[in-house]
Amino acid sequence: MALQRGGLPWNVSLWTRREESLPAVSAALPGCRLSCDLKKAVEGADIVVLCTSPHAIENSGGVLADFISASTPVTDAGSVKARIVAALGKSLGGRFIGAHPMAGSEQSGIAAARADLFDGAPCILTPTPESDPQALDEVRRFWKEAGCRVCEMSPATHDAAVARISHLPHAVAAALVRAALSKNPDVAALAGSGFRDTTRVAIGPEALWREIFLDNREELITAISDLQVHVGELKNALAHGDAESIEAFLREARTLRSREAE
Amino acid sequence: MALQRGGLPWNVSLWTRREESLPAVSAALPGCRLSCDLKKAVEGADIVVLCTSPHAIENSGGVLADFISASTPVTDAGSVKARIVAALGKSLGGRFIGAHPMAGSEQSGIAAARADLFDGAPCILTPTPESDPQALDEVRRFWKEAGCRVCEMSPATHDAAVARISHLPHAVAAALVRAALSKNPDVAALAGSGFRDTTRVAIGPEALWREIFLDNREELITAISDLQVHVGELKNALAHGDAESIEAFLREARTLRSREAE
Repeated sequence: MALQRGGLPWNVSLWTRREESLPAVSAALPGCRLSCDLKKAVEGADIVVLCTSPHAIENSGGVLADFISASTPVTDAGSVKARIVAALGKSLGGRFIGAHPMAGSEQSGIAAARADLFDGAPCILTPTPESDPQALDEVRRFWKEAGCRVCEMSPATHDAAVARISHLPHAVAAALVRAALSKNPDVAALAGSGFRDTTRVAIGPEALWREIFLDNREELITAISDLQVHVGELKNALAHGDAESIEAFLREARTLRSREAE
Repeated sequence: MALQRGGLPWNVSLWTRREESLPAVSAALPGCRLSCDLKKAVEGADIVVLCTSPHAIENSGGVLADFISASTPVTDAGSVKARIVAALGKSLGGRFIGAHPMAGSEQSGIAAARADLFDGAPCILTPTPESDPQALDEVRRFWKEAGCRVCEMSPATHDAAVARISHLPHAVAAALVRAALSKNPDVAALAGSGFRDTTRVAIGPEALWREIFLDNREELITAISDLQVHVGELKNALAHGDAESIEAFLREARTLRSREAE
């Protein structure tokens, strides 16, 4: 949808796993070529973008290599990069450039597709010393034309950063829903927009997030440990009725959060 | 703003603490009577609504009683009810009916005012056995005409519920911002809408939230303890690479959260 806006020179070909998805995908993306046959979908492609679940991305290199030319750049949209970059570096070589567009919502499936989903969203590319410079250029151009602001860092730096700004928020939202509603689910009816926003991501599909959490396990555990320290600090200040520490805690959070442009 | 929509029969008179606020308030609410003199603002009122900080609400009863007739109903918009209801029950008697409209945002001040702020929002009234039935009727009508869905419960039940759906989310959002950004604030530039939504409430004013947290200290500490149990459970499952438990944890959160109508 993003690439088919405003006269961009892309011909989009989509692979989808299930035949029964084809009618809805075809209706949402009338200008695209569609197939459940991977060979047909990628044949002759100038660039290939892997958007399946993380483990499926990891395992797709071998079969993909048989269907595309040796110089075709390949990128992906997986949420954890070290494993994927290592696996696809092996099966596809320097033409694979890992990417993580920081866009999306708690929804999934073609019904959640939006042409402006990527507009202004950061897209983190994770090239390595083995990356092919021309593939990197083409992958960079692809994500920019989709609407993203592109930046680059190593797979390890990426995984540490997203543990904190994506995986930890998801873990915390899920724990918060459970702490807020397990004992008495009816209190949800009293919630305002604060609760709804704070817990929105917890509606995301658990099978995908289980994969993400396990793929970034070490970094997520470290981030959760830090969260535990901060939660403990606030609880301690509350237990002591320490107004000054509570206000300083909240002030630091507000200041850190406000720095970010909305 | 809400009461002045569509021919409702309200004449609104506003008290504001600071003279310098008057021009902006007057511009935002052209049909209202404005004053920094409490006596002038409330004289002859059929109902009085206290919307200051929690401690100011608590302490307003004595002075207010001198300026209004003995039968004028009084309500408020404070976030914690047991303390306010006890204090104002003493100073104003059965005509005080505590209320908590579950509306608002991380913003404050007249610039954040919106006519539709209360539309469809729950408003929790906390009458007691001492409440005057006619005052309760009038206060109920007031919040309904402002746009709220009104429900009723005891002050203690209210405080336990909002500890979980409002005060805990705020505490968690603040702790999450600190855990995510303290070590490296620059990662905020990579965040998507998930991080922004999960942490939005942490932009709220810390002086107000310090008061709220301390006024509902016992309930909030209990809720934080529950959160710590859930966070520990998830961390433990991650440490053991226990895919099944992680998925079950996330599934329960999604199911609980999805029950609530958006």
